[in-house]
Amino acid sequence: MLFDMEHLVQLEQIAQIPGFEDAGLETAQAVLEECAKLCEGVVAPLNVAGDVNPSSFKDGVVTTTPGFADAFKQYAQGGWQGLQHPTDFGGQGLPKTIGAACIEMLNSANLSFALCPLLTDGAIEALLTAGSDALKAQYLEKLVTGEWTGTMNLTEPQAGSDLALVRTKAEPQADGAYKVFGTKIFITYGEHDMADNIVHLVLARVAGAPEGVKGISLFVVPKFLVNADGSLGQRNDVHCVSIEHKMGIKASPTAVLQFGDGMAASIADSAGPGAVGYLVGEENRGLEYMFIMMNAARYAVGVQGIAVAERAYQHAVAYAKERVQSRPVDGSVKASATIIHHPDVRRMLMTMRASVEGCRAMATVAAAAYDAAHNHPDAEVRQQNQAFYEFMVPLVKGYSTEMSLEVTSLGVQVHGGMGFIEETGAAQYYRDAKILTIYEGTTAIQANDLVGRKTGRDGGQSAKAIAAQIAKTEAELKASGTVTALAVAKQLGQARQAFVQVVDFVVAQAKADPNAVYAGSVPYLLLTGNLVAGWQLGRSVLVAQELLQKGQETAFMQAKLTTARFYAEHILSRVAGQADAVLNGAASVMALPMEAF
Amino acid sequence: MLFDMEHLVQLEQIAQIPGFEDAGLETAQAVLEECAKLCEGVVAPLNVAGDVNPSSFKDGVVTTTPGFADAFKQYAQGGWQGLQHPTDFGGQGLPKTIGAACIEMLNSANLSFALCPLLTDGAIEALLTAGSDALKAQYLEKLVTGEWTGTMNLTEPQAGSDLALVRTKAEPQADGAYKVFGTKIFITYGEHDMADNIVHLVLARVAGAPEGVKGISLFVVPKFLVNADGSLGQRNDVHCVSIEHKMGIKASPTAVLQFGDGMAASIADSAGPGAVGYLVGEENRGLEYMFIMMNAARYAVGVQGIAVAERAYQHAVAYAKERVQSRPVDGSVKASATIIHHPDVRRMLMTMRASVEGCRAMATVAAAAYDAAHNHPDAEVRQQNQAFYEFMVPLVKGYSTEMSLEVTSLGVQVHGGMGFIEETGAAQYYRDAKILTIYEGTTAIQANDLVGRKTGRDGGQSAKAIAAQIAKTEAELKASGTVTALAVAKQLGQARQAFVQVVDFVVAQAKADPNAVYAGSVPYLLLTGNLVAGWQLGRSVLVAQELLQKGQETAFMQAKLTTARFYAEHILSRVAGQADAVLNGAASVMALPMEAF
Repeated sequence: MLFDMEHLVQLEQIAQIPGFEDAGLETAQAVLEECAKLCEGVVAPLNVAGDVNPSSFKDGVVTTTPGFADAFKQYAQGGWQGLQHPTDFGGQGLPKTIGAACIEMLNSANLSFALCPLLTDGAIEALLTAGSDALKAQYLEKLVTGEWTGTMNLTEPQAGSDLALVRTKAEPQADGAYKVFGTKIFITYGEHDMADNIVHLVLARVAGAPEGVKGISLFVVPKFLVNADGSLGQRNDVHCVSIEHKMGIKASPTAVLQFGDGMAASIADSAGPGAVGYLVGEENRGLEYMFIMMNAARYAVGVQGIAVAERAYQHAVAYAKERVQSRPVDGSVKASATIIHHPDVRRMLMTMRASVEGCRAMATVAAAAYDAAHNHPDAEVRQQNQAFYEFMVPLVKGYSTEMSLEVTSLGVQVHGGMGFIEETGAAQYYRDAKILTIYEGTTAIQANDLVGRKTGRDGGQSAKAIAAQIAKTEAELKASGTVTALAVAKQLGQARQAFVQVVDFVVAQAKADPNAVYAGSVPYLLLTGNLVAGWQLGRSVLVAQELLQKGQETAFMQAKLTTARFYAEHILSRVAGQADAVLNGAASVMALPMEAF
Repeated sequence: MLFDMEHLVQLEQIAQIPGFEDAGLETAQAVLEECAKLCEGVVAPLNVAGDVNPSSFKDGVVTTTPGFADAFKQYAQGGWQGLQHPTDFGGQGLPKTIGAACIEMLNSANLSFALCPLLTDGAIEALLTAGSDALKAQYLEKLVTGEWTGTMNLTEPQAGSDLALVRTKAEPQADGAYKVFGTKIFITYGEHDMADNIVHLVLARVAGAPEGVKGISLFVVPKFLVNADGSLGQRNDVHCVSIEHKMGIKASPTAVLQFGDGMAASIADSAGPGAVGYLVGEENRGLEYMFIMMNAARYAVGVQGIAVAERAYQHAVAYAKERVQSRPVDGSVKASATIIHHPDVRRMLMTMRASVEGCRAMATVAAAAYDAAHNHPDAEVRQQNQAFYEFMVPLVKGYSTEMSLEVTSLGVQVHGGMGFIEETGAAQYYRDAKILTIYEGTTAIQANDLVGRKTGRDGGQSAKAIAAQIAKTEAELKASGTVTALAVAKQLGQARQAFVQVVDFVVAQAKADPNAVYAGSVPYLLLTGNLVAGWQLGRSVLVAQELLQKGQETAFMQAKLTTARFYAEHILSRVAGQADAVLNGAASVMALPMEAF
């Protein structure tokens, strides 16, 4: 993590940006070490417990796994919820570049636990960007300090990826507030016992609003109403009616929430049923605000993929170094040896390692762009970084999470039969990871975003700018002339050329033949994520070579070289097939008549 | 299934082989239809129940999911256990080509249930090939009729893939029997309540036997001893001490068996502790006999992969045709439409469909080779088919099961958030499938077999013979000149050329640099399975085109063309990357020092 911060994104340059003066490498190291203590000592030990003894539901009350509430208290009191948030509201004001690393650790420790802060971050972002001063004053500090938590209420039974179908209603009241009525599903930490209040951010339609996504507004609906002095008032009319029985991330309660069914005991005394809600920003601009939460959450879910993959890797390495089975094929040991001696176990571990390092490098570079886009004094620098960050979000989310499926599967595989036994622990990562390619927008939704908003809209300009930067890295690798650099440059060059071809295809066909473009949208995303991750590892090769010449951290830098070369030869080399699928494969995707399925 | 039998393997020719006279297409169709009734009506409805209410263990007794015992009785009474086994012992004597299709259906219906017959088949094969007449007389008919079931007892805590480490002991007794002592783990259906007796086939060492795999013998150890008249005698000294808590296939009990701990009540009256066992064949040839069971089981596990993938496909198609979400990108529907309209959902469904059809075609061709290898009157034909079948076994096992991981993952993905909810059912296939790449030899073990015994040993001759046949198919496709045929031929040609390069590399380096070869063994296996499955779909194109010209089954044949083309462009196209990993990727697999992991 520190290597990426120091060498791939030059954290010291981010620390030149006004507001980030204290965020240099020393700070980063100190923060990471403190975070590691909390993750290792408090949060990670609850991971298996959360799987074996998940959150439970009874009579409207959700009880989380024993230990979770206390751990969250420690998390909040340590100031971790506010790490990236403004000091004005009680946060630490650190750059995302450092925050993302902490979020990765927290998710490696416990994916289910980390979801609660993740959703709260989204709610904070939305209020910061679009909330009125009154809403900010009432809610932000409590969220930033982790006294309360936040949720995102988008999905309804008929409205998943398709938010145009949202039916939840909001009725304006005389006092300027609204009353909200409807059912929301899949609400992560929609109800729990870890904080005093829960601040729901809810998509709903005001009566008379336009149909479709242009008629959706965003509301704050707190579980408990908040008095003028900030103390908690009466229970609002929003209730958890059940939680889901899931394949993984079992400790995180996934709630069905009913808004406005008049169940609150206090309702009888007040003005009838309806959950009291407060408009965020303007009416009918809810989708836009929702994307603020969503983009923060999408990036964070990409980091979840990296995190669970890293955990699976560490688990598998430990087993491979301990389990004795069979003689090495090269005769280097004359008896049964630990399985890490066997080439295919090595191949699996290297695949896991290289995938994680590639995706982490990509995510770190994206985080640094975010920091510059939001805080750099130069408008042009901000704009360039914003474009780059926006291009990266679907890659960080889509590619890192798809990667995590492969890596957690290999994690089970390294364990052999023991991997399939739940007590071993590897299976939990495999089960947990599968949600990551689905929530906060499926891989297909990320791919649509990449094809449409991120590639088609600017005619491939952002994509080509990245290709040009990659070509520069290739040239530097070739100039260095080492075996590793040349091997990486070769694969990088082939992948970049395939990428450019695919971008041209996407831009040319986007309007003429949308089916053809969208038939290849996921292969395009996987190709692009693969390329960008490989590129960052290529940049790492240049850094590592330079530092090796200076005699610095020899073993670590050698490992970087090997890992980057493995990535290039085993993973970047998949790009040829991915490009084929986009460029030649569209016709056969849509050709089968529906009734033939 | 019938298309593959009629056109890819010419079942009518198999029906010319003495002993298979009744096994023509009409028989095949009738058998498949009867099998489908049982699977659909009796076995499939127990699949979810087995997951929710798995086999349980208490005081040495395993209770299977309610309904399983009765379903197994119906299965046995219908003669299904004996389908492929000799009529001499109460079987139906049908070819494997037909039997494999029935096994696929049974596994699609219920992977956990189907494991019991699968293991019994292995025990039957071992006794048929190596058992004495006395053992055959005492055990075979009971196994073939499903009155009793069989198990394979290989694994011990320290001996998984590495059977050289087996420690279970067998002590010769005065009466010619042995007494067996030791612990076996991961014994599928090692204890259950579905049959009157369980016939364990157990690997153990006789005192004084050579070390390693050359000192292992195979024994029959029945749960209940069998009297001379075939009736059940006293309880043998083998006991289940626990069953595993697994991620999937939960209904199938995975037992820890203790041999010879003196726990049987009847032991006190008899000659002291020790499980009574009977030697199969000769001492110290156990590994060889075990491979008979193992090869039957490996093929069958490959079919399990196809089966669970087919089930996941059908489940996903049903959802995609029903779930309404978002407007189609091509504007073909002006409102939200069923998700099967969306290109990426199509791409996922086509990937699932094409993968299943390709692997099924490969498995069918392998089964037909088995039938000819075992029954053809011409010795040369037998020998050729044997070589082909042996080359196919690691592909059917390794490639079809790896495919099933991808397909069951896509099955969850098609369902979006609902896929992660257990009640939807898609998650069970994902959890169940993960064992398939592990048991009966992991994918790496299959790949070692492919590299060593199947490629290296004959200097690549079998591999090259297959490449030559593929080239013939390419030529025929090119000659037909249709768009589909040319598209398939192009990808097939590239893949075959890559395959030949890889085979040359494997043969050349196998002894010189074993690490380099084994570093690429799994990519080599995936490449080869991919190629062979694609080849069989290429052959399907030729058949479908011919039948379309004759006006036969138009929609079905059109779908074959589309599916084959999709496979070529989206899956066969992965071969380039797989070849790169083998040819260029070896160095980086082994380069990282152990302590750097």
